[in-house]
Amino acid sequence: VAVLAGGVGAARFLHGLVRLVPAADVTVIGNVGDDLEPYGLHVSPDIDTVLYTLAGLVDDERGWGIRGDSATALEQARALGAEAWFWLGDRDLGMHLARTERLRAGEPLSAATAALTHALGVEVTILPATDDRLRTMLATPDGELDFQTYYVRRQHRDDVLGIRFDGADEARPAPGVLAALAGADVVLVAPSNPFISIGPILAVPGIREALRARAARAVGVSPIVAGRALRGPAAAMLRTLGHAQTPVAVARLYRDFLGALVIDEADAGLAAAIEAEGVRAVVTDAVMRDADARRDVAAAALAAAGFAPVGHAP
Amino acid sequence: VAVLAGGVGAARFLHGLVRLVPAADVTVIGNVGDDLEPYGLHVSPDIDTVLYTLAGLVDDERGWGIRGDSATALEQARALGAEAWFWLGDRDLGMHLARTERLRAGEPLSAATAALTHALGVEVTILPATDDRLRTMLATPDGELDFQTYYVRRQHRDDVLGIRFDGADEARPAPGVLAALAGADVVLVAPSNPFISIGPILAVPGIREALRARAARAVGVSPIVAGRALRGPAAAMLRTLGHAQTPVAVARLYRDFLGALVIDEADAGLAAAIEAEGVRAVVTDAVMRDADARRDVAAAALAAAGFAPVGHAP
Repeated sequence: VAVLAGGVGAARFLHGLVRLVPAADVTVIGNVGDDLEPYGLHVSPDIDTVLYTLAGLVDDERGWGIRGDSATALEQARALGAEAWFWLGDRDLGMHLARTERLRAGEPLSAATAALTHALGVEVTILPATDDRLRTMLATPDGELDFQTYYVRRQHRDDVLGIRFDGADEARPAPGVLAALAGADVVLVAPSNPFISIGPILAVPGIREALRARAARAVGVSPIVAGRALRGPAAAMLRTLGHAQTPVAVARLYRDFLGALVIDEADAGLAAAIEAEGVRAVVTDAVMRDADARRDVAAAALAAAGFAPVGHAP
Repeated sequence: VAVLAGGVGAARFLHGLVRLVPAADVTVIGNVGDDLEPYGLHVSPDIDTVLYTLAGLVDDERGWGIRGDSATALEQARALGAEAWFWLGDRDLGMHLARTERLRAGEPLSAATAALTHALGVEVTILPATDDRLRTMLATPDGELDFQTYYVRRQHRDDVLGIRFDGADEARPAPGVLAALAGADVVLVAPSNPFISIGPILAVPGIREALRARAARAVGVSPIVAGRALRGPAAAMLRTLGHAQTPVAVARLYRDFLGALVIDEADAGLAAAIEAEGVRAVVTDAVMRDADARRDVAAAALAAAGFAPVGHAP
């Protein structure tokens, strides 16, 4: 099972998925468009969120970061006049130190990610979409902002008028990405923001083509429920970018490679409109309130792909 | 008062000095030969030791690092497979984050150091000897080692057969260094290792010349007492580099710019040999056991320079 994944929503979905499918059979293709280099350290926020969630370390309240982590280093840096708007816990910082050491030694991000995944005891394969530099840039009324400035520093309050993936043209899929997409029995698109979480993955030349080339079309889970995003600014972005704030827009954005879209019961009335896009609508309770709900959403996605996992009870 | 300074020994001496002279009247010219970039962060161990000591933050037992600091980030990095032989506390790491942020923004090390010094409320001026990259490299029977590999990782157990200051030829004194040396009433050489603490400072073209050009010659404090180093490998280095393990060798190493050398009572018998080098020997209790002893050693150095501080009782 290959899964295109952003951050918190994807991590929770994956957490449900690995209760149904052996973790070793899951490959995550992760977003690197929101990576950043505070103080020169390489931080991969979406991949870290997936990793911390699958490793059982995540701060469940926030959805990201390590539960109970201190922030001694960041507080000291702030006290010394450094910018400190991007939260970095101390244990979290240890992760970034370890990743940065590997990158500085010449390892590609995919190899560094694999080593960190292994060190955390996570059996899921986590592949960054690309080892090359790709950064999500957002056009706003105040000018173009890099992703984290938009999202964290300015708390995604700016209207997004356009999106650009800096470096995408020259980016190549990381080793294993195209093979995973070609060889997977099932490709799932996690309930992540289509523009800023899945968009940067699809922007890597070759990935979207690999999805289109599959005989078994992918199955997505809508991040939009009842006109609102499960998390973050997806609904507002749909609006400012000229789309409907509904799962229909999600189906349309993915229609060239999507076979089915899992939507919430609240949106059951939109099933016909989604099917008019050539995408089958699968209605379920798609809000991942707790661990069981995560599993149930993952089960609905697998079922929509005609894939019935066996032998992996909760 | 300008002071050439290494790490722990110098920091303790300076701690005594600022009880005698207003901190704002003291300029430290600090060693950067042992700077390193673990994980891409810029660490200036000697300057940090001076800073932490003058800010009252230092771990007095070890002589370096911040008292009571945790090492959560480093432990996590180690758990994730990173090299972690260079100790970095969490608050300490905050310092390196703040410094690195400034350097990455294009500030020279001297400006970053000034900002951090100010942020810590330290009134002494601390100048790195140079803003340029200068690294102490040690020839050993196992080949050339960078300073921290020699000192920390291999715990200075290798015989040092030669020393090279990588980058020294192209290094320029940091802004303010030559002016401080030219304008100071008194120049002191702290009780630091002459090879690896003071040596890298003197290796910056122009600094030694500025010391020689002074009318009032500098006053040093011997880091060697009774054939042993107050701290670290100075005595062993004197031996492997072919010098006597005595303050006489220290006097000889500095004789072109030194007017007097403060030595311990244990070495009083060497006074004549030191004076034969053209350096006046000043005998005192030169072991800095506690805060009062630090002050007394600093007072002896000031007195040897003919400088009688007034109005600054302990």
